[in-house]
Amino acid sequence: MSIANYIRDVKDFPKEGIVFKDITPLLNNPEARKECLKLLVSGLNGKKIDKVVGVESRGFLFGMLLAQELNVGFIPVRKPKKLPYKTISASYTLEYGTDTLEIHIDAIQKGDKVLIHDDVLATGGTAKAVCELVERLGGEIVQCNFLMELAFLKGREKISQYEIYSPLVY
Amino acid sequence: MSIANYIRDVKDFPKEGIVFKDITPLLNNPEARKECLKLLVSGLNGKKIDKVVGVESRGFLFGMLLAQELNVGFIPVRKPKKLPYKTISASYTLEYGTDTLEIHIDAIQKGDKVLIHDDVLATGGTAKAVCELVERLGGEIVQCNFLMELAFLKGREKISQYEIYSPLVY
Repeated sequence: MSIANYIRDVKDFPKEGIVFKDITPLLNNPEARKECLKLLVSGLNGKKIDKVVGVESRGFLFGMLLAQELNVGFIPVRKPKKLPYKTISASYTLEYGTDTLEIHIDAIQKGDKVLIHDDVLATGGTAKAVCELVERLGGEIVQCNFLMELAFLKGREKISQYEIYSPLVY
Repeated sequence: MSIANYIRDVKDFPKEGIVFKDITPLLNNPEARKECLKLLVSGLNGKKIDKVVGVESRGFLFGMLLAQELNVGFIPVRKPKKLPYKTISASYTLEYGTDTLEIHIDAIQKGDKVLIHDDVLATGGTAKAVCELVERLGGEIVQCNFLMELAFLKGREKISQYEIYSPLVY
């Protein structure tokens, strides 16, 4: 089974000229989902993980499956004012303007070995902000994994000090 | 183990006078998470499910675990303009104004037996809109389940024609 068969190209989304990689067929197929989870886990090469950090919203999906499979805690990183307890935040640049992400201050303990997960590595701005949050709390980033990497956007360069794994590269 | 011990009360969130039920300690504890998943599955009493529908964002968390455990498709319901393919939408009333949710038109096949999942049953507006979307696509709603029900908000009355299950009731 190739999980690539479960990624659908949607033209002109979110705007004209963009071909969006739609993961909903993958979510909807339990066999493809299992295969994808297996690939993500095997990409860790047995490295020890204490926490999986998933980025709102699509990073919650396989982030929870990874945490369950690895039998470790799941930590959500969210948009501002969504997390109820005390948080720290990091901002990053978008095409126009900036965006901000937050994490609970008690989410990570010093020395925790952390896997960061999101669905797509695009420009890398989000991933970099998440890495910053985790390190400010004292976590050690073992790997950043993604369902797919859009290599032409060169996000990898923004987080080049970390190990990166994606089963799908476009 | 009582999963209630992993729900944290956060006072004055999102605004003064509200005590918010924070599920992040539950997400962060793999044993509590497994127990919660077991309760949600046992609440189905063996009923056949073809699809799990999870509501953005917190409904994605246990929604994916449920879909994986039941070995069925996962369908995201999202805020407007987030789903890339063709959608239908439903609006519902908030305290001030309205909000809208969308589902892909090919997400559900006629006759699919559907489990709807979200983290909290509060006023029931969101759940009612999701039920409407699923039924417009021809799905049969087997149950709406939630991690918790805030009974004093009487959301149950808005979706009284459906089976409702929550391991935690406040």
